[in-house]
Amino acid sequence: MKIIEQPLKSNWSNLVRRPIIKEEKLDNAVRQIMLDVKQKGDLAIFQYNAKFDGVNLDRLIVSPKEIEAAILTIPNQLKAAIEVARKNITAFHQSQHIVEPIVETTKGVKCWRKSVAIESVGLYIPAGTAPLFSTVLMLGIPAKIAGCKKIVLCTPVSKSGKVPASILYTAQLIGVDIIYKMGGAQAIAGLTYGTESIQKVDKIFGPGNQFVAKAKEFAQQAGIAIDLPAGPSELLIIADQTAVPEFVAADLLSQAEHGVDSQVILLSNDKVMIEKVLAEVVKQLVDLPRQAIAKLALENSKVIFFSTLEDCVLFSNTYAPEHLILAATQTENLVDKITNAGSVFIGNYSCESAGDYASGTNHTLPTNGFAKTYSGVSLDSFVKKITFQELSKEGIKNIGEAIEVMATEEKLYGHKNAVTLRLNNLEDEENK
Amino acid sequence: MKIIEQPLKSNWSNLVRRPIIKEEKLDNAVRQIMLDVKQKGDLAIFQYNAKFDGVNLDRLIVSPKEIEAAILTIPNQLKAAIEVARKNITAFHQSQHIVEPIVETTKGVKCWRKSVAIESVGLYIPAGTAPLFSTVLMLGIPAKIAGCKKIVLCTPVSKSGKVPASILYTAQLIGVDIIYKMGGAQAIAGLTYGTESIQKVDKIFGPGNQFVAKAKEFAQQAGIAIDLPAGPSELLIIADQTAVPEFVAADLLSQAEHGVDSQVILLSNDKVMIEKVLAEVVKQLVDLPRQAIAKLALENSKVIFFSTLEDCVLFSNTYAPEHLILAATQTENLVDKITNAGSVFIGNYSCESAGDYASGTNHTLPTNGFAKTYSGVSLDSFVKKITFQELSKEGIKNIGEAIEVMATEEKLYGHKNAVTLRLNNLEDEENK
Repeated sequence: MKIIEQPLKSNWSNLVRRPIIKEEKLDNAVRQIMLDVKQKGDLAIFQYNAKFDGVNLDRLIVSPKEIEAAILTIPNQLKAAIEVARKNITAFHQSQHIVEPIVETTKGVKCWRKSVAIESVGLYIPAGTAPLFSTVLMLGIPAKIAGCKKIVLCTPVSKSGKVPASILYTAQLIGVDIIYKMGGAQAIAGLTYGTESIQKVDKIFGPGNQFVAKAKEFAQQAGIAIDLPAGPSELLIIADQTAVPEFVAADLLSQAEHGVDSQVILLSNDKVMIEKVLAEVVKQLVDLPRQAIAKLALENSKVIFFSTLEDCVLFSNTYAPEHLILAATQTENLVDKITNAGSVFIGNYSCESAGDYASGTNHTLPTNGFAKTYSGVSLDSFVKKITFQELSKEGIKNIGEAIEVMATEEKLYGHKNAVTLRLNNLEDEENK
Repeated sequence: MKIIEQPLKSNWSNLVRRPIIKEEKLDNAVRQIMLDVKQKGDLAIFQYNAKFDGVNLDRLIVSPKEIEAAILTIPNQLKAAIEVARKNITAFHQSQHIVEPIVETTKGVKCWRKSVAIESVGLYIPAGTAPLFSTVLMLGIPAKIAGCKKIVLCTPVSKSGKVPASILYTAQLIGVDIIYKMGGAQAIAGLTYGTESIQKVDKIFGPGNQFVAKAKEFAQQAGIAIDLPAGPSELLIIADQTAVPEFVAADLLSQAEHGVDSQVILLSNDKVMIEKVLAEVVKQLVDLPRQAIAKLALENSKVIFFSTLEDCVLFSNTYAPEHLILAATQTENLVDKITNAGSVFIGNYSCESAGDYASGTNHTLPTNGFAKTYSGVSLDSFVKKITFQELSKEGIKNIGEAIEVMATEEKLYGHKNAVTLRLNNLEDEENK
């Protein structure tokens, strides 16, 4: 890990730059998959499952028997852990349900918003090297709280044709309606267009490799909503002299083990702290099972010394990290200055893995600088807010003239007329 | 307007279909404009302004003098009307600012969300046949309430090189920072990439023709957020026997005058009402200045008779209209059944133009069926919600084991280790 000292602001735009993915080949490959699934339906899904995952299935939908069998294999310790996470994620996402007030903007003019669930949602759960059942919780729980009527899940299967037991267990626990055995771009295509056995959904959620991410882009162009644009996972840590070097090193490594494209950044106003953290990284790396991945990720990572914590936060805001850890004891001033981040972990005991699994916050977050404009997944992601308005006779009399004048200025006389007719009608009524 | 009687549900998917836009030519043309602006900056903007709007400018930014001069031309009656709208739009969008609670999901584990303004936003204001200054209010007011630091606006100019006075007046009233003289795809390109005189923004808002809509799609692919995917404007009215035929006809026409691609749908459970409304449409059309446009729009519109109001609402939910008017007196039951709509207007005195201008709700709404998944523009559109979490020593002790177990199941041992080190450290501390 290379240490950069007090970079000039003019150089920050280079330092916050994410790796650029060459997309043309990917674009064509995924476009073809989308088209095939649209035209050939199930047949195309089976074929791509065979081609990419080496699995030959005779049906896509997981049977109740498979689910029952999976449940029996889950150890009690794992069930208890999932229950802790389920409870906390439910509590936090439940708190995001807010009934908004009816606002009488002018006497007789009532306006309000109501959250209404998106009817059908599709959750994509990756299962490459490991089954990411935690993502089932993160997407399924808010979908259920929102009241989505149809929650379907898709996940790639191993050559044995089986979905990992922890995914099946978690899915039935939170009430997923259908589980499809399919992964990759073909799964997203299936949810986008529907097939003989797959129901088309209104919105697609979930992480995935670059094929999945590209397919979600195409899904969006086809009119299906998606949760977030994609990018590699990221962690930025701001550590001052009160940080604990071994904790900071462990947090950096927990991010680095995600994938070789993981982005890891350490900022500090304390050179001794930087040295201690780097020494700890070397020490801890030795015992990490995924050290080969972590090492490659660390090669792209950056350590930057700034003379003040304010500059650290300013740089972090410019970078807009997915995860931001404030490894410090006095954090109040810093927290107020954060303007761009997906999720912020405050103090020495708030490790990123807490939020990844069990504290209650969502782990589906904006990457790639999108934290400047996008929020992470929340209850909001599973609803739309419909506005309502009800004008009484008094209401239209109070604002009618303003509408007439504005519509006239915009030369939309039909708009004006809709008001004029009502005002005249009310005048007639009064003169009766 | 053709009347359809009690269509079978199997035919609904045909009836709710929107017009399909052939995109390939558009795609290439807009791609070229985006590329030119990216490479040549201001020069390309000036060239496209000359080519498409027939205007030769020597600077893109509106000067303070131009704004001062414009303000002097605004009649007091228009100023007063704008003030009514400004007050109501402010009140409704202000009410959307909600400070969310801190949730202690487990003892020692605090989670919360904070709304933080998107730093810089660009507002696109069309000004073809008429200056849409109302859209300046609808986008600018929530941007200002949210606390966006930089609010820029762009709008096409007439051959005289002038921005319509009502747009300049409204922009200064709500505190827009910079106004650029540019429209079309080149304007969106300018906001996406930035040029010598144009500042790149984080998110682009506003309606526009198909060039603008396509350019916003490209902007999104380039990493700039946008408000909503685009489509022609729509109105669906559900009218029962208590509706007022002349009001319903006026509302249909107010939508039809928007453009030849406007979508207008009337549903009713009363055949006499349908006949009366259609007779009124013919009568009112005669006096409408934009009758040529409205006539063409009406040719594509649909009138559907259902035997029950419940079926009307069910069909409306399938269509997912941008605007939905419930032209009836007893509406409570119907309101509860609405699941897909952008904005709903309840009762005989809530005309769409009220929401278009002055009631307080936003008029930037999801079209083209996107109301199934997207909300209209609101305060939410100008912020992102950052999650925060703070775990005390007690907090990590309470949920630490759950995290360890789950991380182990997902084979992410670095994630586990970040917790284990902290738990061990706390145990050492206690044993001291």
